[in-house]
Parts: sequence; structure tokens; C-alpha cells
Amino acid sequence: MIIDRLADAVAERGPVCVGLDTSAKLLPQALHSASSLPSAILEFNRKTIDATVDVTACYKVQIAHYEALGVDGLSCYRETLRYVRSRGALVIGDVKRGDIASTGEMYAQAHFSGDFEADFVTLNPYMGSDVIAPYAPHLQKGNKGLFVLIKTSNPSACDVQDLFLAEQPLFMHIGELVHCWGREYRGACGYSLIGGVVGATYREQLAAVRSAFPSLFLLVPGYGVQGGGGKDVAPAFVGGNGAVVNASRSILGAHLSKPDGEERFAEYAREAVLAMREEIRRWMG
Amino acid sequence: MIIDRLADAVAERGPVCVGLDTSAKLLPQALHSASSLPSAILEFNRKTIDATVDVTACYKVQIAHYEALGVDGLSCYRETLRYVRSRGALVIGDVKRGDIASTGEMYAQAHFSGDFEADFVTLNPYMGSDVIAPYAPHLQKGNKGLFVLIKTSNPSACDVQDLFLAEQPLFMHIGELVHCWGREYRGACGYSLIGGVVGATYREQLAAVRSAFPSLFLLVPGYGVQGGGGKDVAPAFVGGNGAVVNASRSILGAHLSKPDGEERFAEYAREAVLAMREEIRRWMG
Repeated sequence: MIIDRLADAVAERGPVCVGLDTSAKLLPQALHSASSLPSAILEFNRKTIDATVDVTACYKVQIAHYEALGVDGLSCYRETLRYVRSRGALVIGDVKRGDIASTGEMYAQAHFSGDFEADFVTLNPYMGSDVIAPYAPHLQKGNKGLFVLIKTSNPSACDVQDLFLAEQPLFMHIGELVHCWGREYRGACGYSLIGGVVGATYREQLAAVRSAFPSLFLLVPGYGVQGGGGKDVAPAFVGGNGAVVNASRSILGAHLSKPDGEERFAEYAREAVLAMREEIRRWMG
Repeated sequence: MIIDRLADAVAERGPVCVGLDTSAKLLPQALHSASSLPSAILEFNRKTIDATVDVTACYKVQIAHYEALGVDGLSCYRETLRYVRSRGALVIGDVKRGDIASTGEMYAQAHFSGDFEADFVTLNPYMGSDVIAPYAPHLQKGNKGLFVLIKTSNPSACDVQDLFLAEQPLFMHIGELVHCWGREYRGACGYSLIGGVVGATYREQLAAVRSAFPSLFLLVPGYGVQGGGGKDVAPAFVGGNGAVVNASRSILGAHLSKPDGEERFAEYAREAVLAMREEIRRWMG
């Protein structure tokens, strides 16, 4: 099962997930002026992937950054996914889709086959189990997986996710739903093909989700620029596995403050991954 | 404000929103075999728009159907939006995006400018007010609007949206949030640039949202194939305005059961719009 491949990747190469949220302001000037923005982004992504693939659990590509550039941006998204997969690495399409079942089928087709094929996608659970159902044929084959939003990393996550039901906040209820949806898709590693997204910026809530739902593999965003650190993500791990921690801007933009960042951006990305991995491992205990 | 244009359109041409969720199985055989699937869909959409533009409040284009066809599908999405707007009609990009603020900015750029520019987009509120914030500059100009998911039309909407908080179900709380977010963006028609999505398949809950939040313009999906009828959507209206009712398959597929449907698909789409408008107006009272 693909969740076993992800758990193996964490065990071998550490829990860092490199977020390819590549925007114009992260690009070295030379790349920027040499070609169109989508081409420059693709070049930047390929070099960053080459420099980090042996120290990274997986990649997460935030489709919004590509969608913002229109059709050409989505060609770049397609090529970025293809490049990650051609390097033998796993890729999460961070699409946060979620719709009624007939529409969900189209999203499943869009992101688990064809131009935009990823290994995992992120989904938004607001519309309930209909959001998940269209992905079942893929989950049954075991070669694709999901990460469902539970407690996100942004400041206003509390607006909805922390609402208090009779006995627990909404996000814990969502955690239960995700746990139930994924029960039949558990890999040899003990984790389900349906994992959860829990932000690094709310440490205690991360710990609560981890301990309540031990079979959920967690995708933890919010590390670095958003404020989460090694200490904050530590509760996501059990025996050094069971989660990947995503960082985007702090890795892709590591070169920005360096005098020789222009030429060596990919090396600085690699250094940032290694420093992040070290920091996470130190707190993991 | 664009919400005034939408309210005017409802007053002049009725509340039907034609959902261009165009998939292969809705296409006449002749179109299907003449060219690539994205080209055939675009041709079908243009003819359907031509045949309905004078009897339709607006169009809603479900991006999933285009995303499923990859980059070429998204070119077709772009051309469909452009065609609707070139005919002087309003178009809702049904994208149901929602993400942290920095990512939301990219989605706002994607769907309110450039290739995929729409007049309104649908958003998912699970991540709270950060989802809305990036759209503020557009709302302040008054030329763009939003529809935020409140109570969706699908069977499992209850999984999350009906969860009971201290005094009310979650979707009523979301209704309150949407109402607050939109307070400063009210048009001359009395409705806000930030509207809500409430499905036709839950009549009483639609009535509850309508009466609690009179300044929300409502986008009502779930009419037709999903089961909602004229009686079900009637509570959405106040004085014959304040809502548009979307139907997709029952309009686009109206030709499928007709012997001469192949050649006259666009006329049958128009007939379906007229019948639907009539039925809604009858119940509107």
C-alpha cells in the first residue's frame, strides 16, 4: 500500500515534506528573467527536487500557485508532478477539493489519473462522506491515499473547527469521521490510506488528534514561516514515524538572504531540509 | 455592485442558473465524434449558452468537469467562462476553494483575473475567515462576489453541517459567519456581495437560512436530478428575488430522451430552462 511506501520514506529519509508552493518572489533573478514565469518555476522546482530528493519523505504541491497562472501554470503543475514521480518520490496534490459525489468523481479522475496524477490528495470534509466516496476504487487498489483536513494551521481555523459540540470540538468529530472512513484501508505499517491534516500551529490539539486516532498518518503543515517549530510537531510522531511535516517558504526561500543565493538556491533548499529534519528529530525524542 | 446586476437579472429573466457541468455522456453523438472531447464540450456549451442566455439569470461552471480532462479541459473551462462573459451574462466559477490566506490569495488571483476570471466563485468555509480575506480587495471594488457553502445539497451534508452546537446546527453558525463577513458589502438591492450556498434538497433548512439572514443572496443547487423541485426552492425567494436556482444535468441532458435530440440539444436546453423557470415561479407565489 502506498501509505507503507510513505512510512518507509519517513523511516529512511526523515519526515520532511517539501512544499512546492513556488511563487515569483521565490525565484532567483536569473531564472526569472530567462523565460516565462511558469517555465522558470518548473526549472526552479526541478533543481530543488534534485537537491532534496534523498533527504525528503515526499513533496506537496499546492495547486493554487499554479492555478493562479492559468492554463500555462497548470501545465507547470502537471510537469512538476511528473518530475517528482519520475524521480521515484511520492507527491501530494494539495488541492483541498470536496464536493457532491458526482462532482467528486470528476475530481478523483482529475487528480488520480491523467495530467494531474498525484499519489495523495488533500480533501476538505465540510460536505461529509460524499467527499470521500468517489475515491474508494483507488483506495481499494491501495495505490492512492488521501489527507483530509482536520485541524488546519491558519489563524481562523478556530472559526469553524473549534466550535464546541456536546462533548468535543468539531475537529475531533471530524477526526472520528476520518478514522471511520479509513478503517478498511490500513497498510502493513498500521496507518490508513486516509490520513489527516493537522497544523503545526496548535500543539495541544495536534497531540489530542494523535493520541485519539493512532492509525491516522498525519500531514502537518504550518512549520517555519507560519510559526510551528520542532517542539510543536513532536506530538505528531510515534516512534519517529506516522507523520510528515511540510514546509514551503522556509525551504524554497532559504536562498533569498544569502549573497550567493542566486546560483546556489537548490543547495540552500537542501540545507534547509537537513536543518529542519535535524530539528524535528531532536524534539522527537 | 455585481450583486445588483445579479438581482436585476433575476428580476428580468427569472432565477434559473444553468450549470455547465458538461460531461461526455451529455454530448450529442455527432459533436462527440467530430473533435476532441474538450472541443466538443466547448461547442456544446456555446450552443447551450446561445439558446438560453435570454431566459437565464446566470451560469455556473463546475470546474471539476474540466479539471478531470487535464490541461486541455482547463483551456475549455477558460473559453467557456469567456464565452459567457462575452454574451454579457454573469458566470459563477463553482470551484469550492478554501485555504490559508497566502494560498487563498493565489486562488483569488486565479479566479478573479486572468484565464479563469469569473464574476462570482463558490468557497468552502471549513478553514474560517482566512478563506474570505484574500477576496476583500475585489469585494471592496464591488465588481466580484462570493457564494460560501452553508448547507449543501448532497446526502452526507449532515455528517458535518448538521452537527448540533449549543443552540443551533453548525450550518446556521456558518450562516452567521457568512452574514458577518458580508455585512460591509451590501448592494443597492439589499443583498451582500458575499452570498451563501444552500441546497434545494433540504427545504426546512433552506427556509431557516432565508429567514435568519435576509441579506444573503442564495445560490441553490440540487434542483432536478438531485431531487429538489419548485416547492423545495420556494423558501429561498423574497418577492421573487434573492436567489438563483442551479440545474445542470436536467438542462444539459434534456435532449437525451428525444428522438431529434441530436440536432436540437440547445433548443431542448432552452425548453428545460423555461419549464424550470415556470415551475419555480408557480411555487414562488
